[in-house]
Amino acid sequence: MNRVEVELGDRSYPIFIGEDLLGSQIAAQHINGRQVALITNSTIAPLYAARVKAALGNLRVDVFELPDGEAYKNIESFGSIIDWLMDNRHNRSTTLIALGGGVVGDLTGFVAATFQRGVDFIQLPTTLLAQVDSSVGGKTAINHPRGKNMIGAFYQPKCVIADTSVFETLPDREYRAGLAEVVKYGIISDAEFFEWLEDHADGLLRKDAATLTHAIRRSVEIKAEVVASDERETGRRAILNYGHTFGHALETATGYTKLLHGEAVAIGMAAASSLSTTVTGLKPEAAARVVKLLADLGLPTRIPAGLQVQELIDLMRMDKKVIDGGLRLIVADEIGTVQVTAAVQERDVADVLARCGADQ
Amino acid sequence: MNRVEVELGDRSYPIFIGEDLLGSQIAAQHINGRQVALITNSTIAPLYAARVKAALGNLRVDVFELPDGEAYKNIESFGSIIDWLMDNRHNRSTTLIALGGGVVGDLTGFVAATFQRGVDFIQLPTTLLAQVDSSVGGKTAINHPRGKNMIGAFYQPKCVIADTSVFETLPDREYRAGLAEVVKYGIISDAEFFEWLEDHADGLLRKDAATLTHAIRRSVEIKAEVVASDERETGRRAILNYGHTFGHALETATGYTKLLHGEAVAIGMAAASSLSTTVTGLKPEAAARVVKLLADLGLPTRIPAGLQVQELIDLMRMDKKVIDGGLRLIVADEIGTVQVTAAVQERDVADVLARCGADQ
Repeated sequence: MNRVEVELGDRSYPIFIGEDLLGSQIAAQHINGRQVALITNSTIAPLYAARVKAALGNLRVDVFELPDGEAYKNIESFGSIIDWLMDNRHNRSTTLIALGGGVVGDLTGFVAATFQRGVDFIQLPTTLLAQVDSSVGGKTAINHPRGKNMIGAFYQPKCVIADTSVFETLPDREYRAGLAEVVKYGIISDAEFFEWLEDHADGLLRKDAATLTHAIRRSVEIKAEVVASDERETGRRAILNYGHTFGHALETATGYTKLLHGEAVAIGMAAASSLSTTVTGLKPEAAARVVKLLADLGLPTRIPAGLQVQELIDLMRMDKKVIDGGLRLIVADEIGTVQVTAAVQERDVADVLARCGADQ
Repeated sequence: MNRVEVELGDRSYPIFIGEDLLGSQIAAQHINGRQVALITNSTIAPLYAARVKAALGNLRVDVFELPDGEAYKNIESFGSIIDWLMDNRHNRSTTLIALGGGVVGDLTGFVAATFQRGVDFIQLPTTLLAQVDSSVGGKTAINHPRGKNMIGAFYQPKCVIADTSVFETLPDREYRAGLAEVVKYGIISDAEFFEWLEDHADGLLRKDAATLTHAIRRSVEIKAEVVASDERETGRRAILNYGHTFGHALETATGYTKLLHGEAVAIGMAAASSLSTTVTGLKPEAAARVVKLLADLGLPTRIPAGLQVQELIDLMRMDKKVIDGGLRLIVADEIGTVQVTAAVQERDVADVLARCGADQ
């Protein structure tokens, strides 16, 4: 088992990575009270809820099952969980456990951040995307009809337990979508890791255990380091959003149904790399390497047909990362080094969107 | 003008107390972006919104008007404000201003804590209760049908501006309800201040400017000191809840319509003082002084007719301050010194409720 620390003073916590951890005692060791609320979804519950519950011994565990899907990461689900916690007399000493992917984790984290002004919570991410990204770093949120993650809080879990055995039951498409975020860590901060990914694309696609464990470990190490340096995203943490402003616009434009988050981010990173060749002078060969690695991992790099340039720009302006009207984007200087810039011309963004397949 | 600091490291902020501050430049000096969302209610808007807006010069100020009343401190109002912020393209650099009493302040603070994972906000409290209590210390929340403040966050404002001129338009009953929290500060931490209040009850009832300013300043000094020592209420801060577990149960039992918060707290403090004579051996004369001062200030000290002991105990058990089933209450050793205790017998609470007027 691997252990990575997220260093945030009195909010520090460990991430555990390894096989068959859902049935281990790790979660129980990080619970202070006697009551647990396990939040999961209808896909994951039949696969893993009983195993997690059994490992919690004689704690009182109530289980809430959401329907599966990003559409349920909304204020209605938030209200339903709060009502259910009240009905079941959960109080300030309750621990919430999120068992599922990013939707369950983000939503449960936001409930934990706000129920009775904050209760403990633990992340048991069951997708690759959630293990390498959303479960680590304390970003919790729900969506608004007009934008992703518009309502949320920075709120850190007590621990994150990444069980690599869950990929046996994870659909291949979702697994590949998670690899997009893994690639991101290489681009934003570790050229050597990016090269390692290029060399191990086959092993990753085969879900080779040792390859996968290294990829997850290195990803969360990079994320933990960035988060520790800027917990509330006032500066450097924004680099974790490489490709994401494009990606969020694509997800919103397609109604959160056509593209998985990781797929939208893959297209967004291709676009951001293309933009970088204009803005920072990133070498075209480097941008091509990004596109090739994503394609080798079975990820899309072109904007789906039928989306308009102006529509996407308007959605990008609604993104949280837009400050006082300026388009604030992350661009790459080279693979392994990125920067936040507010100096991007709307015309250049429009050109990139058109190059990547949007209609003019 | 008086200035009191709330010392919370990088979340420190000042409280300004004085006459005619709503039309001053203080708010504008604490705004970083160019957009402002002013949240107020239908009673306060016609009295003060124009004055506040004028003082913000050429910032873009949008105004949201809630209906007046505790009933609107709910998830529906929260959702409406978020929708309105999205419709008006507010972003992460927006500053929210709460212009109103505790309902507007708590709700606006919770929106600020969660909109785009947190934006700046400023408190302009227009009731005595909000000036001496709810606007200071970063507790934000909305109510749930089954309990007050069940959904919320700890989130500090950029500054608090307490304009003592607003009491000209504050109904007497609401003004007196605010005095209950002033009395609380004497009981929990300053016997000399309590005695000063006994000596100045007349001046307070007359809203004598100098008397009032001293009472507000000393109240927020005590609150600031307690909050600075325990921001997230893991320990000592709980003493600010003296009388409040009783008070919240009374408010819930009467549907938030019969008693003002301060009135419920006044009755709750009478009950807590009575309980203290059993639990800590508080002298009966001290408990009698609490009841007398509250009565001198025109506040109720008896439970309204028609409420059952068991109903109130059940509601007290739902309170956030209940930990793993035990009734955790604040009791007084003497006037000026209180303690948190989890060792209160339900029987003793029942006796007190009956003595204070509840039906058995």
